[in-house]
Amino acid sequence: MEKSEKTCHSPSRRQMMIGTAGVLAAGTVLTQLGGLLNSAHAVGGSTEKWPWRYEKLDPAKTAEIAYEEWYRVFCGAAVINSIFSQLREKVGEPYTSFPSDSFVFLEGGMVGWGMTCGSNAGAAIVANTIIGPRIQPEIAGKKVTEGHEITEDIFQWYSEASMPIFVPKTPKVTTELVKTKAESPLCHVSVGKWMKASGFPIGSPERKDRCARVAASVAYHLVELLNDWKDGKYKPTATHKPVKEFGITAQMNCMECHGDNVPSAPMAKK
Amino acid sequence: MEKSEKTCHSPSRRQMMIGTAGVLAAGTVLTQLGGLLNSAHAVGGSTEKWPWRYEKLDPAKTAEIAYEEWYRVFCGAAVINSIFSQLREKVGEPYTSFPSDSFVFLEGGMVGWGMTCGSNAGAAIVANTIIGPRIQPEIAGKKVTEGHEITEDIFQWYSEASMPIFVPKTPKVTTELVKTKAESPLCHVSVGKWMKASGFPIGSPERKDRCARVAASVAYHLVELLNDWKDGKYKPTATHKPVKEFGITAQMNCMECHGDNVPSAPMAKK
Repeated sequence: MEKSEKTCHSPSRRQMMIGTAGVLAAGTVLTQLGGLLNSAHAVGGSTEKWPWRYEKLDPAKTAEIAYEEWYRVFCGAAVINSIFSQLREKVGEPYTSFPSDSFVFLEGGMVGWGMTCGSNAGAAIVANTIIGPRIQPEIAGKKVTEGHEITEDIFQWYSEASMPIFVPKTPKVTTELVKTKAESPLCHVSVGKWMKASGFPIGSPERKDRCARVAASVAYHLVELLNDWKDGKYKPTATHKPVKEFGITAQMNCMECHGDNVPSAPMAKK
Repeated sequence: MEKSEKTCHSPSRRQMMIGTAGVLAAGTVLTQLGGLLNSAHAVGGSTEKWPWRYEKLDPAKTAEIAYEEWYRVFCGAAVINSIFSQLREKVGEPYTSFPSDSFVFLEGGMVGWGMTCGSNAGAAIVANTIIGPRIQPEIAGKKVTEGHEITEDIFQWYSEASMPIFVPKTPKVTTELVKTKAESPLCHVSVGKWMKASGFPIGSPERKDRCARVAASVAYHLVELLNDWKDGKYKPTATHKPVKEFGITAQMNCMECHGDNVPSAPMAKK
């Protein structure tokens, strides 16, 4: 049924109510929702109308694609492609114009610097490209925060999960892989703990397959969250509030890296 | 002169020689360069032909846009928009179809988790979207690595720079801001050191203006590198080789976070 609506906007109430901030000219303008939007610097492109039409996907099929794609484009682009390749087929534009393979650089926590795990960064890109940023115009007096929230959920879920979860139908490495909890969304923390527990070095087939399965696991869970969002059932679950808790943008486990020497942040005067 | 070529591909030799991997159907196919390309999983979209046409930009003008944009979309999207908004005007597509504002989530090291500084992540997105990923087909027998290399250069340059460098023409905070070296491309390390040196809390106008100026500083340097690349003068400068040096994806200053307790990575057998 939804196939026939290929060139239309999504039929959901949320999507019909979306504003047009993305294509507004500079200046303060009246949106179609009647709200004043100061968009002095808005330079929105043709695809900056959110949400992008989303069709529910099969998590397991998506995970299989992510697993295979890891061996072509590594973690970040694998997660993006696992979802956008299917939406290119089901929906077409604007997914067709999104340069997913540009995100190969997310590999190894961005060009091997061990920062944000590319699977997490890729998931964040998917969620925020489909749902849009939290700065977009309100819908029915409510801020659009689900892209931001799904990102937080993925980061926290990833940190707490025993990874890798997903086992592909025809794994390239057939021995059972040890599972570890990263307690962090960072690449080198996640990979390092797994390397320590497994004894496998970074260049081993086992470590590579572990990361391919992590990308698949993240893609799987991301689709679960996006499907819930599409159905209007999504509820944010992340509890980490960095600035409120620590006075600075941060993860939740300061002492794991800093030991007893956690720097204190200058706090606002009460 | 270049304006008249608006709808054409860039006239540079590099751009004329680019393959068409981005739009290849699945399967092993013969590219226009005569090379065999195994693209079993290639699901490329319409914009996955690199490099995207790039017109040289003015670094100072770009930095001013980034500074102003920070106050609308924060660090990551500010860096992206500072460059893509100008290229939308000078070149048009595919820049017009890139959903820059989706990248608001890069704020605070991705939704406030303090990981990769959004200015760095935004710069990486710009470089790799224009130049393309290192996995794209070789050109004249040479891998296309400049997007990857400019990313490494930005990360290392950022880590070693006294930030913020750029001072906008009409700053929103007029007092002089202290400069600090992050020694890391991570948000919370960069912001945290500046907060410690300045005494200003995370929510202060001074910290915000510092981050807006950091975004502007990164945009400025990124345009310098992209202009050099366009002129065929770009030479990679980054020296950090994580996996080779540490046996794992990582930054270069392990002890700064880990103290004396740096975990050792399982190494490959010699």
